[in-house]
Amino acid sequence: MLETGRATVRLVKLASVVLLAAAAAAAFSPGALAQAGNVKLEWITWSFFRITSPAGKVIITNPFITGNPDAAAGIRLEEVGTPNLILVTDAHRDEVGDAVAIAKASGARIVTPSFEFGNLLAGWGVPEAQVMRRNPGGRFAWEGITIRVVGSVHGSGGTDPGSKFPVYGGIAAGFVVTFENGYTLYFMGSSAATQDMALWAELYKPDAMIFLMSGFTEPLDAATAIKLVAGKSPSLKTLIPHHQRVAPPPGAITVADVRKALDSMGVSIPITSLAPKQSVELKK
Amino acid sequence: MLETGRATVRLVKLASVVLLAAAAAAAFSPGALAQAGNVKLEWITWSFFRITSPAGKVIITNPFITGNPDAAAGIRLEEVGTPNLILVTDAHRDEVGDAVAIAKASGARIVTPSFEFGNLLAGWGVPEAQVMRRNPGGRFAWEGITIRVVGSVHGSGGTDPGSKFPVYGGIAAGFVVTFENGYTLYFMGSSAATQDMALWAELYKPDAMIFLMSGFTEPLDAATAIKLVAGKSPSLKTLIPHHQRVAPPPGAITVADVRKALDSMGVSIPITSLAPKQSVELKK
Amino acid sequence: MLETGRATVRLVKLASVVLLAAAAAAAFSPGALAQAGNVKLEWITWSFFRITSPAGKVIITNPFITGNPDAAAGIRLEEVGTPNLILVTDAHRDEVGDAVAIAKASGARIVTPSFEFGNLLAGWGVPEAQVMRRNPGGRFAWEGITIRVVGSVHGSGGTDPGSKFPVYGGIAAGFVVTFENGYTLYFMGSSAATQDMALWAELYKPDAMIFLMSGFTEPLDAATAIKLVAGKSPSLKTLIPHHQRVAPPPGAITVADVRKALDSMGVSIPITSLAPKQSVELKK
Repeated sequence: MLETGRATVRLVKLASVVLLAAAAAAAFSPGALAQAGNVKLEWITWSFFRITSPAGKVIITNPFITGNPDAAAGIRLEEVGTPNLILVTDAHRDEVGDAVAIAKASGARIVTPSFEFGNLLAGWGVPEAQVMRRNPGGRFAWEGITIRVVGSVHGSGGTDPGSKFPVYGGIAAGFVVTFENGYTLYFMGSSAATQDMALWAELYKPDAMIFLMSGFTEPLDAATAIKLVAGKSPSLKTLIPHHQRVAPPPGAITVADVRKALDSMGVSIPITSLAPKQSVELKK
Repeated sequence: MLETGRATVRLVKLASVVLLAAAAAAAFSPGALAQAGNVKLEWITWSFFRITSPAGKVIITNPFITGNPDAAAGIRLEEVGTPNLILVTDAHRDEVGDAVAIAKASGARIVTPSFEFGNLLAGWGVPEAQVMRRNPGGRFAWEGITIRVVGSVHGSGGTDPGSKFPVYGGIAAGFVVTFENGYTLYFMGSSAATQDMALWAELYKPDAMIFLMSGFTEPLDAATAIKLVAGKSPSLKTLIPHHQRVAPPPGAITVADVRKALDSMGVSIPITSLAPKQSVELKK
Repeated sequence: MLETGRATVRLVKLASVVLLAAAAAAAFSPGALAQAGNVKLEWITWSFFRITSPAGKVIITNPFITGNPDAAAGIRLEEVGTPNLILVTDAHRDEVGDAVAIAKASGARIVTPSFEFGNLLAGWGVPEAQVMRRNPGGRFAWEGITIRVVGSVHGSGGTDPGSKFPVYGGIAAGFVVTFENGYTLYFMGSSAATQDMALWAELYKPDAMIFLMSGFTEPLDAATAIKLVAGKSPSLKTLIPHHQRVAPPPGAITVADVRKALDSMGVSIPITSLAPKQSVELKK
């Protein structure tokens, strides 16, 4: 089922996961990559993902290009194309990334982690009609896609040229996205593990989870987040790490560290370790 | 036991709940409405409640009048009267409302969700002697009434004319109020559901809960918050929704949505859907 | 096993705890106090602790001296000596204390509760090389000592002369410190009780816990925090309170209040109530 691959890519074959080729350098053309009826997910770098729904809608997350130390491995701003929706998990510079420029250029709407973040976006020039202010516990529904905003144990301070100190972006969030075919993806953002992850898993039954592997993440914490979700969502079959994985700092957490921690907790779900610009097809 | 009613009010009769007439347009006179020994709760609009304790003390919450799109259905600033205490759950403009003006005019004390929020109030001109700085995990006790400040998964950014961006009001909170007769009310503010609600329910055993029905609240989230409290507080008999319920946005959550979600979770506690300015008597 | 004592000190003798003399007025000399192989913990005042690892490393927490109403009972700035690490749980003025001045003078590194707090420190003049930016879920490992940053239900607003309102310091945190010999200490900072404390206890199995007794802390909340940790960490044997305990406000929580609440919950772990500058030796 593996359609193409790259020599540098660690391949994973699973019933629920099909790795696809890295996107072409030209602007993203989801129709050419996604099989009808499946979700296609491409990891660009960092926590920047480009996701195509079964019906061809494009959602991007945390589009960090400018200033991203791993940007050379990813895509250029002009390759982002015209997403329909942008999800940003908090106001940190590496999560906001180029969201403002992309929204202005594409007309894409941004679903916010909290009300305050919407005010930052408006202050930075995103037209009000594109700012979908939500808070944890809220939802955004659009053309068969339902997005639940859930909590995140993380800060949300933005960078603004007019302020010496971080500007307050409300509280951080994660997103649970349910696509037209019912496939459900939980993107935890930069959260620490919290018991509330078990609540969200019980309510929304994610099939896949994008989990945090920041340089300094404690592997036991990452594994606990996964364990909490897996314990309440038997359909969880796919785990995808995010964050500074291209050139991690010395002593940084590795996929093997998380694997070991998961094994010690009795969680056997495989980790799908994507290369930059590599895609995976997600099947129910 | 229903003393009066209005044609537009959906009436609910329960052993634990007695709906009262809408408050007269004149200044609030709690003695005329509350039966001795009971708590009387009036929903004004949005998350603005006016609560009279069995001993006649008046507590108001989130007194949002100026700029409230539903204000015409509620009361005017000069009708607020002289509360003893003001509870504000976070620094959002629709929760702070006219709290500063009311505190200055009445001398009422404000119990804050967090230390920082007290600094905002002081900066906005509330005399220090009226600023009761508390944090989640803290309590405020006064003349037989005990208020516990509990967490809330929500932002707390304030609006200040001198700042382009939200000013940081600390973390948001909910309040658990135990009245002189032991009756206990949990006001969750604008929080998402969190497992910690089960902790607070186990500790303080609320008899009533004011829950969030913001326009974009996910019904499953609202129902989960209630379920968590109900699971640890067998005395929970009364559920009262709050937020933009007078003129909700298209697609907004309805009471029927929450009812359905509660039923699916096996929670049969009735929802008391008040009309603006309608009161309910809360009996142990 | 009690080496020395003071008349004003309430002494506690336990297998796991040995109270030591108050530190001499001269600069701290850990080697003189700590037995080889044990952790030595000295409470200065408020939430300022000075901890010596089995290998002689010195960690201080929330070094609040200037402006501390209890400062006379503690130590002077010039008596702090040269710690290796500084842990600050949030940006509140009484937690940051003199951390900036101490870091500048000593070269000590500060492990931050969140990214934003690191930006505050840098803005206040702490050299970047000393700012160890972490977030909840993260860890800092150094010469056999591992520090996990965990969440805290509390605000983190800083005081800056250039700002009328609190500056946003990200989210607050607690710290779980595992020393060279495996002994593990959980410092909860100013958090309310949260179910996530059970998660951290299960992962890191603390032997001791420094818990919050702010003036307005609800005793049931303090006891619940302890109960959650004790329930998942059978090795928890030592409980040490912190905060304004030298001259508490009227009606403030007492150690007896927490004891009573713990007893009501079936938790029998003794509370080690230190006097200012008193030390305790912590044995595995």
